[in-house]
Amino acid sequence: MQTREDELESEPFVKEIPPKAVDLPEWYQTVCYKAELVSLAPVRGCVVLRPYGYGIWERLVAELDVRFKATGHENAYFPLLIPESLLAREQEHVEGFVPEVAWVTQGGGEALTERLAIRPTSEVTIMTMFAKWVQSYRDLPLLINQWCNVVRWEKRTRPFLRTLEFLWQEGHTAHANQAEAAEEVQRMLGVYEDVAENVAAIPVYAGEKSESERFPGALHTYSIEALMPDGRALQAGTSHEFGQNFARAYNIEFTADDQSLQHAWTTSWGMSWRMIGAAIMVHGDDRGLRFPPKLAPYQVVIVPIVRGESTAVRDAAQHLYERLRDDGYRVRLDVRDQSPGWKFNEWEMRGVPVRIELGVRDLEQGVATLVRRDRAFKEEGQKTTVPLAEVSSRLAALLDDIQTVLFEQAEGFLKSHTLRPKDQAEFFKLLRERAGMIEIPWCGRPECEEHVKAETSGATRNVRPPAQGPRCVACGEPANVQAYFAQAY
Amino acid sequence: MQTREDELESEPFVKEIPPKAVDLPEWYQTVCYKAELVSLAPVRGCVVLRPYGYGIWERLVAELDVRFKATGHENAYFPLLIPESLLAREQEHVEGFVPEVAWVTQGGGEALTERLAIRPTSEVTIMTMFAKWVQSYRDLPLLINQWCNVVRWEKRTRPFLRTLEFLWQEGHTAHANQAEAAEEVQRMLGVYEDVAENVAAIPVYAGEKSESERFPGALHTYSIEALMPDGRALQAGTSHEFGQNFARAYNIEFTADDQSLQHAWTTSWGMSWRMIGAAIMVHGDDRGLRFPPKLAPYQVVIVPIVRGESTAVRDAAQHLYERLRDDGYRVRLDVRDQSPGWKFNEWEMRGVPVRIELGVRDLEQGVATLVRRDRAFKEEGQKTTVPLAEVSSRLAALLDDIQTVLFEQAEGFLKSHTLRPKDQAEFFKLLRERAGMIEIPWCGRPECEEHVKAETSGATRNVRPPAQGPRCVACGEPANVQAYFAQAY
Repeated sequence: MQTREDELESEPFVKEIPPKAVDLPEWYQTVCYKAELVSLAPVRGCVVLRPYGYGIWERLVAELDVRFKATGHENAYFPLLIPESLLAREQEHVEGFVPEVAWVTQGGGEALTERLAIRPTSEVTIMTMFAKWVQSYRDLPLLINQWCNVVRWEKRTRPFLRTLEFLWQEGHTAHANQAEAAEEVQRMLGVYEDVAENVAAIPVYAGEKSESERFPGALHTYSIEALMPDGRALQAGTSHEFGQNFARAYNIEFTADDQSLQHAWTTSWGMSWRMIGAAIMVHGDDRGLRFPPKLAPYQVVIVPIVRGESTAVRDAAQHLYERLRDDGYRVRLDVRDQSPGWKFNEWEMRGVPVRIELGVRDLEQGVATLVRRDRAFKEEGQKTTVPLAEVSSRLAALLDDIQTVLFEQAEGFLKSHTLRPKDQAEFFKLLRERAGMIEIPWCGRPECEEHVKAETSGATRNVRPPAQGPRCVACGEPANVQAYFAQAY
Repeated sequence: MQTREDELESEPFVKEIPPKAVDLPEWYQTVCYKAELVSLAPVRGCVVLRPYGYGIWERLVAELDVRFKATGHENAYFPLLIPESLLAREQEHVEGFVPEVAWVTQGGGEALTERLAIRPTSEVTIMTMFAKWVQSYRDLPLLINQWCNVVRWEKRTRPFLRTLEFLWQEGHTAHANQAEAAEEVQRMLGVYEDVAENVAAIPVYAGEKSESERFPGALHTYSIEALMPDGRALQAGTSHEFGQNFARAYNIEFTADDQSLQHAWTTSWGMSWRMIGAAIMVHGDDRGLRFPPKLAPYQVVIVPIVRGESTAVRDAAQHLYERLRDDGYRVRLDVRDQSPGWKFNEWEMRGVPVRIELGVRDLEQGVATLVRRDRAFKEEGQKTTVPLAEVSSRLAALLDDIQTVLFEQAEGFLKSHTLRPKDQAEFFKLLRERAGMIEIPWCGRPECEEHVKAETSGATRNVRPPAQGPRCVACGEPANVQAYFAQAY
């Protein structure tokens, strides 16, 4: 059966990209497949992450992992499968996840006596292990991270944003007291904010989730929220404070330095390949993808413009490639059997930050042409001619500049789409229209949020104290916090 | 229920390690748990890879990954789940793996209409994708690697060597002709040999598997085989040539440059965390683990010998730690609230290649004491006193030397336990006694191997042409290849 996704993968590329502003979902789906980030998998609701998409994931992993280690965390690996009885131990948690679980019921040719869940998240396994590992205050804090796949049985799926299986990291920590756990939760929220803004070039609002949006079993959930071009918010990372809930359910007890027996204070925090979906939507344009240099699998592509048998251009391109590679750039030399124009189009569509064109005339003059992907076609400054010997030394600053420009463009959009309505009517109207991040002083009451949701289908994204006004714009009760409301992915 | 493994994890460590030569399985299990490489997981047949064990895996991943990329491969990610109908496409392959499959039959609260296998390996998914991606000779070679978890329903399990779930990499490639595919298979076998010998410091024999030991669906399977201290062989990496078998079963067709339509030639190759198990067994001694510096999570541990309130020693240790870290060593500073003797024992047991002791007297003399883990207790040269300012510069050579010594010790063992019997009686006797790698000129006939297996329970590990004798030592027929026989893990 030929599906829409199959068609997308087999069509010629650039002319087929629909305008981003007109139909974001169609644009998104098209670029994901045509830029070879993903392929539709032979199992429902899953995608294959192709090398170019995986290259972005590798960048995100590297940037997160170095920050996790710098903050004292160590990686470990826990089993994929969770016995049903273990999953059922923490009541709120199990109720939150069981509807989405995939169950293994047969193995080695036999029916199993107990169903095994494929992990939708690993709290229950990791808390069980923490209970074995933690005996004394000397064993704390315990700071663990896991890189892994998880499965959640979703009905409607979209590449990166929602799939049955996805790749992520989940951090899990245990602490001797509430203060250290709270500090950890904020520290890791800060890491996510840093990576979103300074690696993915996506400005975010960080804050606490409202009661109804909390992670099952958490006392406090914090998130970073990004704004997509269609005015909908996307949650890009979360950090949870569990208090002693999980420690009680899973018996994580330790002897304190005063010899008293106490329950540990635990946290968890996660970011997934969903961040890639956010980067695609935030930065892309009608020519295709644009990736910030710190996230791009290739920062630079060299396209030799070869006519006839000119080996001089090929050799110079190869030489430049080796120079840039040795200087630490992520660079690709494109010597495929295709026309230069085809390659220009393809690499623009795939979002490589800088293209270097090198032809016979360039070579004669000892220069190369650098083309920035952050500038529009024929825009002032899109192309620069640089002496060959200076390409490497000037590239670093150029890439930094592109990183900054992409962030500033996204930040400009976020700021111009963060709206502060003065009354309920305007608030409901903006929220219904999906106008962006709607910021109001808010009472914080679940009943109020429920009412807003019923009227607009929008909800809080996150909140920060103190309120910047005396009354809740949604209901008129006294305001307690400053809240962002939006429609969400 | 308190299991044996639970006990091992809670006992005091060094004195409890049984002698390695007396009972290798008991020694192995003890060091795996007590050195905190793994913990017993709450699901049958699986282990938790703890940070110290995962640290070794990270080293192995890094060393393999850089070699895969240097040979032109790209990473990608394919789904965990495989529809039953897809798995059944290649007959030999499905028969080889179905008995070991774990099946998902329920998801999202409903029974599934088709069972989904958790991947025991990803050939069928990846070949299905290759069929979509490969159209023209321009798309070849296609060189893909995947890092992932797989599940095989094993009855008896042991940490690293055999578990229901394990971590591995699986490379999958497609080529335009047989010669390139054959070259790829040898290239990746060479990468495995290089990593085994030069990273894990484990000498191996590389060669081809006999017909009965081939991967299901392969025309040729090659392996590297290491020898364990109990005289049994351990397969540590495999590389398979599939010819056009999978391309035919999964329709991987391309238009050649002469416009003819042809089936691609495919390969796959894999190495798993089993290699860690080999390194534990090969290098460990009665004091515990010994890791080669290139595989060790920490190459160096600094233990300050602090009595009373001496901050000078602490400060000097911290300073040395920062210096070594900044110079690129993987180093740990142990300031835990335990005695120096306890720490010495623990880090010896955990196999850190070099321990640096720093006490008040050392500091007064401006020196530190370096202790090598590859030398026996009080052996000549085990301890060296080095001026503090020279520690970093001398450490590189010391680590290189330890890497070499561990390899040479293992190589000495392999050579002295590679035996060349002259007749069938001696051959059977050595094989039954588990005397090591038994090398003979061999006929290569499945009937002969079957007979040897029935008589001795040993089998071929791998073979290399040409035979170094006219007649098969096992049966007296004409010899075709030189074969290694052994009992195996």
